[in-house]
Amino acid sequence: MRFTSEQRLDDDVLERQFTLGEIPGILWTPGSGSAPAPLILMGHPGGLHRLYPRLMARARHCVAEGFAAATLELPWSGDRPRSAAAEETRADLHRALEAGEPVDDELVDRLVLPLVEKSVPEWRAALDALLPLPGIGGAVGYAGGVISIGIRLAVVEPRISAALLFAGSFVPRTMFEEARQVTIPLQVLLQWDDEGNDRQAALDLFDAFGTREKTLHANMGGHTGVPHFEGDAGNQFFARHLR
Amino acid sequence: MRFTSEQRLDDDVLERQFTLGEIPGILWTPGSGSAPAPLILMGHPGGLHRLYPRLMARARHCVAEGFAAATLELPWSGDRPRSAAAEETRADLHRALEAGEPVDDELVDRLVLPLVEKSVPEWRAALDALLPLPGIGGAVGYAGGVISIGIRLAVVEPRISAALLFAGSFVPRTMFEEARQVTIPLQVLLQWDDEGNDRQAALDLFDAFGTREKTLHANMGGHTGVPHFEGDAGNQFFARHLR
Repeated sequence: MRFTSEQRLDDDVLERQFTLGEIPGILWTPGSGSAPAPLILMGHPGGLHRLYPRLMARARHCVAEGFAAATLELPWSGDRPRSAAAEETRADLHRALEAGEPVDDELVDRLVLPLVEKSVPEWRAALDALLPLPGIGGAVGYAGGVISIGIRLAVVEPRISAALLFAGSFVPRTMFEEARQVTIPLQVLLQWDDEGNDRQAALDLFDAFGTREKTLHANMGGHTGVPHFEGDAGNQFFARHLR
Repeated sequence: MRFTSEQRLDDDVLERQFTLGEIPGILWTPGSGSAPAPLILMGHPGGLHRLYPRLMARARHCVAEGFAAATLELPWSGDRPRSAAAEETRADLHRALEAGEPVDDELVDRLVLPLVEKSVPEWRAALDALLPLPGIGGAVGYAGGVISIGIRLAVVEPRISAALLFAGSFVPRTMFEEARQVTIPLQVLLQWDDEGNDRQAALDLFDAFGTREKTLHANMGGHTGVPHFEGDAGNQFFARHLR
């Protein structure tokens, strides 16, 4: 891992861009030396430049509560090399959505499964690189979408102790089986009127998770309408489980 | 309203028992004079003596965050006069539950609607008596079950600004229509595996509420298994809306 830039934000947050091999990422840590901060990996749908304002706001909110936060570009997104197969799948998705057609299981599988397969080892490699850094220590959480990436990470990565998952993306049927294997504490966010997300499927997925401590927070509004106070609720969830 | 006893609890909470006419009630306020405290009315299924430990614990948690809390005995419960009709309905309910029979709409109506009709004016009269007291001031919240009482109060009582409702009791079909008229902010608690509560009906009720700001918190476990951290979440909800 190589740091490529560093800046200190107003509220004494240290923001460092890095590359892990060829994968861009960002790390936010408390600016002043204090106790080692538990790390929250922040998931997203891909495209770090486009998502930067939202990710930075979430990261600052985490750091204000004494956490470190890090994110990684997804495969075939942002500045990373494209894949012909991923481009074709995205085009198929847009065609289906514009035509008002249902997004069938085969398309969901093509859209999500390769992303999970390729990204999860990358996030684990990021943990290998991030956890030995000074100022980072203790347990690790995963927060955000893509929910299937969060599910796979929760199953295969023992260093992740709790996950705050956003039920706002297509979920392959096979991920329901993986969800049953999740045993870490979960907080699941659901936007009740999410135009691109099947509410019943999200409730079924919440039901499927194998963990005993899981909480669903459902709020009104569409995909991008998660209320501000859920940031506080997420911090409190991680404070309970990462400290 | 007449205070019948007064004690100061360890954590500087002043607990006062009172009667409103012939109705017993309890008021908890910060023991030391400070700014007027917003009042939280604490709902429950009836039986103040039996529920006292739980109600007191909840009240202390509220007072620790700067609220006042009050509760009132329900009609035909605890030390209040019985009603032959209510006794008969309860017996019918126990018979149905023990026989494993479905609790039909007619029985739910008989069980809940008279309670709503009689108790809601009593809670409103309690507000008349409590709000002028020194140390109490600002907005009012309602917290707990019986959810149908909370719904009716939210619709008819303009002094209630926010409600934290526990979806853990039978709800007459007509209350779904009243739920559509609720416009105050709501936080709704649902126990995912509540043996006595139909999960889908609770989700339908959440969907029916007319308010734009409503959040569902679903947790694992049965009727009495609401996790401790929901007390904090409730305080934060009321802090957002009653201050």
